[in-house]
Amino acid sequence: MRSPILCLSVLGLGILACQTRPTPDRLTTGRWVDLSWDFSSETIYWPTAKPFTLEVVSDEVTPGGYYYAANNFSAAEHGGTHLDAPIHFAAGHHTTDQIPLDQLVGPAVVIDVSAKAAASADYRFEPADITGWEKEHGQIPAGTIVLVRTGWGSRWPDRLKYLGTNKTGPEAVPELHFPGIDPEAARLFVERKVDAVGIDTPSIDYGQSKTFDTHQTLFAANIPGFENVAHLDQVPVTGAFVIALPMKIKGGSGGPLRIVAVLPGQ
Amino acid sequence: MRSPILCLSVLGLGILACQTRPTPDRLTTGRWVDLSWDFSSETIYWPTAKPFTLEVVSDEVTPGGYYYAANNFSAAEHGGTHLDAPIHFAAGHHTTDQIPLDQLVGPAVVIDVSAKAAASADYRFEPADITGWEKEHGQIPAGTIVLVRTGWGSRWPDRLKYLGTNKTGPEAVPELHFPGIDPEAARLFVERKVDAVGIDTPSIDYGQSKTFDTHQTLFAANIPGFENVAHLDQVPVTGAFVIALPMKIKGGSGGPLRIVAVLPGQ
Repeated sequence: MRSPILCLSVLGLGILACQTRPTPDRLTTGRWVDLSWDFSSETIYWPTAKPFTLEVVSDEVTPGGYYYAANNFSAAEHGGTHLDAPIHFAAGHHTTDQIPLDQLVGPAVVIDVSAKAAASADYRFEPADITGWEKEHGQIPAGTIVLVRTGWGSRWPDRLKYLGTNKTGPEAVPELHFPGIDPEAARLFVERKVDAVGIDTPSIDYGQSKTFDTHQTLFAANIPGFENVAHLDQVPVTGAFVIALPMKIKGGSGGPLRIVAVLPGQ
Repeated sequence: MRSPILCLSVLGLGILACQTRPTPDRLTTGRWVDLSWDFSSETIYWPTAKPFTLEVVSDEVTPGGYYYAANNFSAAEHGGTHLDAPIHFAAGHHTTDQIPLDQLVGPAVVIDVSAKAAASADYRFEPADITGWEKEHGQIPAGTIVLVRTGWGSRWPDRLKYLGTNKTGPEAVPELHFPGIDPEAARLFVERKVDAVGIDTPSIDYGQSKTFDTHQTLFAANIPGFENVAHLDQVPVTGAFVIALPMKIKGGSGGPLRIVAVLPGQ
């Protein structure tokens, strides 16, 4: 990444003028995109999880004469756009607060399998999806944040279309149908030493998974997951930088995640 | 921000060699620092607010044979390292989810009044603290995130030292003693068109405030606040870039905030 540079040398006169245009610093020139769904009573949670609730404490002018708004909230860690910390399925591994910040920020790639997922809600992202991508773009470098795009974001927040069922409770679980990542692909991500894996569905394992092997595989390697990531259609295949900052819950198995991408500027 | 540039011109020979070292892109070369306290039963909340609680749902090997950890959590929006959305004290202004992302990320300056705050727990950051800083560093540019450093972070999580009282409930409120920002300084921040104002105490208004005028002043201008910001001693006076990502609560008056700084690299 070199600065554009213009040099003029008037020969014989020894006059030299060099001008640089500064290399764009993406922090200031990049375009910031929010990849997070908001939290409300519409936010989609796992059918057995405690959904998000907001309790209004105040929304009025107080006796002191000034307006004051405040709320309490409660939820399961795993719902909406959220982090899965490695401890979620791997005892003794990183809790939410223990994940190194360097692993939550980094260059990102998007692997798009939305055509395959559109053909089957049970689609499992497979090793060939990685190696196929790599044929075009080169091997995924260590330290990359990989975002798997299934196209499921366009179904949010329609529970039936997004989860495969409108039911809640344990009886809904066998009816879950959405794409996820095959454990063999997870193993290849571990080999590639990626920093984190995100997806635009409720889970990195597909809806019909019973043993959550992709969770187990990634988390045993301390690779966290980002689930229900929004707006992956706005992230280029390469060139984005992702910043994924979870609520810092001490000892947490996950938590609400605000994830954004910095896209290359002009 | 110019690239270091080396040019050699051998006079008379017309030989010209120019070499640039690329301008560091702080996203990849910067040092990332976490300015967030974690959430636990020790996290400090306003004496009248609902504190953070974590309820363990699972922390064991399931009948399916795999380990599984999950929790529910609940809290007031305003506690720990958190956002104050403008609507908190300004009806009709931005809720948590409505704050433009561009206002939550940007170049930051630190104004250090820790010596004055050490001399009085009731210290109010005043306009002269801004103009004095500007004499040395130039006028605070529009779009800056201003971080007011009182040194209070070193008292966390000792409630008595940090809040001035160990009590909870309404009777604790008159006993609150910690530094804040005088409304006149808040007005100057509005004039400067800063993007956001952070502080390392429980509130942008000082502990003894009864009418929260600094909140009212900033929020009427849609300038959000960051409170209980951690580790401000690690942020340089100028040159840092702050990324402050709150949990995206729809209609929220605030919420848990994960705030980080990117410091200039080598």
